[in-house]
Amino acid sequence: MTAPASPRPAPRVGRLPRGARDAITDVAGVTVGHCTLADGEVQTGVTVVLPHGGDLYRDRVPAAGVVLNGFGKSVGLMQVEELGVLETPVALTNTFSVPAVAAAQIRIAITANPEIGRGLPTVNPLVFECNDGHLNDIQRMAVEPAHYRDAVGAAGTTVAEGSVGAGRGMSSFGFKGGIGTASRRIRTPARGRFTVGTLVLSNFGKLSQIRVCGKPLAPYLRTASEDEVVGAETPEKGSIIMIVATDAPLDARQLRRVARRAGAGLARTGSVFGHGSGDIALAFTTAYTVPHDPTRPAPMPVLLHDAELDPLFEAAADGIEQAIIHALWRAETVTGRAGHMRHALTELLPSWADILGPD
Amino acid sequence: MTAPASPRPAPRVGRLPRGARDAITDVAGVTVGHCTLADGEVQTGVTVVLPHGGDLYRDRVPAAGVVLNGFGKSVGLMQVEELGVLETPVALTNTFSVPAVAAAQIRIAITANPEIGRGLPTVNPLVFECNDGHLNDIQRMAVEPAHYRDAVGAAGTTVAEGSVGAGRGMSSFGFKGGIGTASRRIRTPARGRFTVGTLVLSNFGKLSQIRVCGKPLAPYLRTASEDEVVGAETPEKGSIIMIVATDAPLDARQLRRVARRAGAGLARTGSVFGHGSGDIALAFTTAYTVPHDPTRPAPMPVLLHDAELDPLFEAAADGIEQAIIHALWRAETVTGRAGHMRHALTELLPSWADILGPD
Amino acid sequence: MTAPASPRPAPRVGRLPRGARDAITDVAGVTVGHCTLADGEVQTGVTVVLPHGGDLYRDRVPAAGVVLNGFGKSVGLMQVEELGVLETPVALTNTFSVPAVAAAQIRIAITANPEIGRGLPTVNPLVFECNDGHLNDIQRMAVEPAHYRDAVGAAGTTVAEGSVGAGRGMSSFGFKGGIGTASRRIRTPARGRFTVGTLVLSNFGKLSQIRVCGKPLAPYLRTASEDEVVGAETPEKGSIIMIVATDAPLDARQLRRVARRAGAGLARTGSVFGHGSGDIALAFTTAYTVPHDPTRPAPMPVLLHDAELDPLFEAAADGIEQAIIHALWRAETVTGRAGHMRHALTELLPSWADILGPD
Amino acid sequence: MTAPASPRPAPRVGRLPRGARDAITDVAGVTVGHCTLADGEVQTGVTVVLPHGGDLYRDRVPAAGVVLNGFGKSVGLMQVEELGVLETPVALTNTFSVPAVAAAQIRIAITANPEIGRGLPTVNPLVFECNDGHLNDIQRMAVEPAHYRDAVGAAGTTVAEGSVGAGRGMSSFGFKGGIGTASRRIRTPARGRFTVGTLVLSNFGKLSQIRVCGKPLAPYLRTASEDEVVGAETPEKGSIIMIVATDAPLDARQLRRVARRAGAGLARTGSVFGHGSGDIALAFTTAYTVPHDPTRPAPMPVLLHDAELDPLFEAAADGIEQAIIHALWRAETVTGRAGHMRHALTELLPSWADILGPD
Repeated sequence: MTAPASPRPAPRVGRLPRGARDAITDVAGVTVGHCTLADGEVQTGVTVVLPHGGDLYRDRVPAAGVVLNGFGKSVGLMQVEELGVLETPVALTNTFSVPAVAAAQIRIAITANPEIGRGLPTVNPLVFECNDGHLNDIQRMAVEPAHYRDAVGAAGTTVAEGSVGAGRGMSSFGFKGGIGTASRRIRTPARGRFTVGTLVLSNFGKLSQIRVCGKPLAPYLRTASEDEVVGAETPEKGSIIMIVATDAPLDARQLRRVARRAGAGLARTGSVFGHGSGDIALAFTTAYTVPHDPTRPAPMPVLLHDAELDPLFEAAADGIEQAIIHALWRAETVTGRAGHMRHALTELLPSWADILGPD
Repeated sequence: MTAPASPRPAPRVGRLPRGARDAITDVAGVTVGHCTLADGEVQTGVTVVLPHGGDLYRDRVPAAGVVLNGFGKSVGLMQVEELGVLETPVALTNTFSVPAVAAAQIRIAITANPEIGRGLPTVNPLVFECNDGHLNDIQRMAVEPAHYRDAVGAAGTTVAEGSVGAGRGMSSFGFKGGIGTASRRIRTPARGRFTVGTLVLSNFGKLSQIRVCGKPLAPYLRTASEDEVVGAETPEKGSIIMIVATDAPLDARQLRRVARRAGAGLARTGSVFGHGSGDIALAFTTAYTVPHDPTRPAPMPVLLHDAELDPLFEAAADGIEQAIIHALWRAETVTGRAGHMRHALTELLPSWADILGPD
Repeated sequence: MTAPASPRPAPRVGRLPRGARDAITDVAGVTVGHCTLADGEVQTGVTVVLPHGGDLYRDRVPAAGVVLNGFGKSVGLMQVEELGVLETPVALTNTFSVPAVAAAQIRIAITANPEIGRGLPTVNPLVFECNDGHLNDIQRMAVEPAHYRDAVGAAGTTVAEGSVGAGRGMSSFGFKGGIGTASRRIRTPARGRFTVGTLVLSNFGKLSQIRVCGKPLAPYLRTASEDEVVGAETPEKGSIIMIVATDAPLDARQLRRVARRAGAGLARTGSVFGHGSGDIALAFTTAYTVPHDPTRPAPMPVLLHDAELDPLFEAAADGIEQAIIHALWRAETVTGRAGHMRHALTELLPSWADILGPD
Repeated sequence: MTAPASPRPAPRVGRLPRGARDAITDVAGVTVGHCTLADGEVQTGVTVVLPHGGDLYRDRVPAAGVVLNGFGKSVGLMQVEELGVLETPVALTNTFSVPAVAAAQIRIAITANPEIGRGLPTVNPLVFECNDGHLNDIQRMAVEPAHYRDAVGAAGTTVAEGSVGAGRGMSSFGFKGGIGTASRRIRTPARGRFTVGTLVLSNFGKLSQIRVCGKPLAPYLRTASEDEVVGAETPEKGSIIMIVATDAPLDARQLRRVARRAGAGLARTGSVFGHGSGDIALAFTTAYTVPHDPTRPAPMPVLLHDAELDPLFEAAADGIEQAIIHALWRAETVTGRAGHMRHALTELLPSWADILGPD
């Protein structure tokens, strides 16, 4: 399963330059993999973000999470909050497949480090989820540990977007949502250039809310058949997971500050962090690792000064907004459980240039 | 000191109907008062929001605060977090006047309840602040306890906006900021109608960021003399205080959820919660009070179900965005410390109708 | 599997009277069930605490969690924090069995409410864990969904303690730990009598730390063969889960205050909340339920005034300390993985009366 | 004003060795100063802890706070939480004198850095408080800015304890409380030796709760005249402020972990973190500073690995328990407002050796 060809270029957010791929993988070392399940009533999958190619249990990555709205069942943030590090890849899937993916993460960590849970401490699975129950028969718990392994095995620097991986069955604003990614390059006054990459699992929002680059789209979309977006105004049972990666040298406290700005990007698309939407952000850095073993030397880079964080904040907000737009623009129409269908937004939208008007 | 006549109507945010005054005082019982100091180098003041007209120490109001970015010196939120109630009016002032206003709140509470600090517990001052040092000689600490008393004494249901009270010396996006207020009326499926009122002390933002109803204004404003907005791109040393009031019956946990949505409204105006900006939200309800005295009967209304909160979330976000726009549109130009001047945005902006174009 | 007969009465904590069973089930409606796996290398299990006998998804229970030290992999607290309610039983198991138990909770909830994940929101599994890897071959992930069902099926008001259920393979202070429970009856000045019940899964502590009713035990225990407590001074890889139940009418904010006092009881036993110990407390009330359905009437009792909470705080602290002592006193010696053995503390301890001396 | 001669040696907590002074000033660079007001109805003061002798605004100290119970009016923790640094000395005083001391901190910072609030950001006052209203006429707000300056001017490495500085009017367990300090020397496996120093402002607790080294004292103290401890069982309106200093290289996240262990030491003395007691801990390190100016080089030491923190946790808990005992043992009897008297515990207590019995 690969991402569909984008029928037309997506609107561009903000003033910051993009990285080469406009993807989270523009942060050196980061890779992304998908495993997509698309078969009748089953429209779901797994997506993984790997901060580096090594053993994350041994070489942990500084990280921090922020819960904008905690109506969600993601696992692993408690220990990230305490210790400020990731020790597995970041996994995304549907709500009821969290246990299967967490079990797979444990198994893989044990295979690599057989003393885990014996001579070594246990490992902390990190699995985020959204509810794709509209298109996917979530009660089947179709995701198995092997699918997580497949996603890890498929990881690379080219990131398919839209109706792929964990995004296969996700919806946004009454349209097809899913995976989106983006990147921004920034420059700090004292420390020079860094990259900020973002990836979202987008499954939130009601038709009436959607704003793209500040422009409400509902007036344009209502010209489409109302039937095609039926249910778009039902209460949110969605969620969004927002991942921010950077190569800037930050500690967990600073990464929490960066993660919080994901909420600014999300808000710009029209979200008010709905009651039923689990809205969660995670930020990590690839600038250094924290060894599991306390006796190994752990040289640390000089951290970025907090007064230099504003460009990262702007990039995190812009990058999340852009990734949500990419998820919408690059998703293909999917038909799933009980014949439910979510249209690609682009099928129902006039040309973006027409919307913007002469400018 | 009264608010200047608004030279032209402000843009309107969202689809929800406004209350009669489009002000926080549309929530029955809430009043607002200002004391403005405008004399040469001193351009500052105090604004108070009173949840009800009684003794707040005896009849406390359910409340919750949210810190979006904690670069700030506000006082009182720790106890609000623990006990979930306010016990003084909500006071707003400049950063270095927090001690004087807190002292005034203590004195007034003691006058009303002479056993405070003896037979009764102490009282928790609640003072929020922004740094108006660009226009105001903040080092003079010009605000005195009497000014707080004057603001309380002046409280009523008509709310002056813009360069008044605590807003006198505040700036936003390189223009004159200050006090703004708004309200929205909502309807919940099971419990009927409620009102959400908002008030901001707006002192954040850089010229390049400003968005009004999704529209970036910088392209239009750059036609104005660059000199007039000089310094608009310096790093933020601002802040914004966002107050949300409602008559919906909520507890402190739910009010925290409402307060968090203030961040969505703030983000829509272009903010990314800058490093140097203390961005804080407080929500309270007037639906019931919590008596100080544990032996007094405390009938509680049936609380709103969490699944009914989405309309409040939308109203909080829209109301904060609207209040920020009101602060900008209703501020008058102020010249203060060292001859610094902040222009009213409306002096430099073409007609909003021209910006929106034929729609 | 039943708890061993207690060889001698356990020391008594505090001055508050106990409930009839000195167990969490003294809070009316609460039941506890175990499923114990004890076969060679597998020494583990599941314990459940059911706040009431009905459908928890439909009639949710107010609750709050507190993370004293977040080195742990428990799941479900994020949504408890946001919504202030439980919607499944409280499950306890070993670290690597969390996914199996969470999956079982999802399945059971779907069976009872087939629209979950379709017309209804998803359900939030709530599973706490400790690492029993010293005695149990945790890598086998021996716990299966059926074991969770068995524990629920076995639930009743008589609570076996010690080396049972999730406590089967747990260790404390270098001795055998596991399940302990206790209760205290309190009286508040204005609102009368309530019950506080506690239950712990005790798997923390080093020999040198242990204090019982303030008395360090290490000097007495060192007379036992050092071999028998070998490893007792290795760094903690343990954890403790502390559950506090009450029939006092509290909201989630107040329950969080109560849960925090579990830490006081834990500290008195000698814990300093070790780096590697996931120390987590959860408090819930049975005084009222919060319906899932927002259209159902939800009469609420008048909540206890915060100024009346001190007796609950004392009961929570005493009850947790007492439950830890019960876990130690009632555990039987277990031999498990790789021939590892944990002795019952009582086998190695002189009579408590002798320790206390003439008093 | 100097501390009274200790009539007999205080009980010793734990197994870790003390520093040379058994005081927070055993952490190199830390100094403490008092200003004591003792005149009839006025029995209060100011205590300051200075992390280093330089300009804290320019060379900030990593720090983190933890609120065990937020019934308190301390100021400054919000920004410490966001930025992870102190930028003023740590000030302690009575509840109603917080504004005066905060104003003094602002003034002093401006004097040293005249651009504060103009070209430079504002400064964050950090003032902790307890309510000494039983002995001190707190409504007089007797503390003035000059008293804060006097405390800073008096700072040194010899620390008077008991009824001095901010501790002048404080009570604990119905006896005279106040200032106590202690230190512990620790050794980490991979990084060698460090020092942990503690200082408390002790103003909490009821007679029935007090435990010293695990031993309840109430049975021994009840032999004293009941009149002498009258009111000892009234609800807490106290508080405790707990400061932990170390020279170990930690970041703010780790310091928060250390600060949380202050609660373990507090709990061992009998506290259950009473409803009306503001129980707050702050930890800071002297191992490095964070420059205010982002263009200045900021070499960072290699941080201690989290797996090495257990000795610090033990030292923090033991040090806080010890400091509370020192406050009690070294306080002298004080008579103050309305003739209220708090006895020194040691006046009413038999010899500690007699209590412990033959051991």
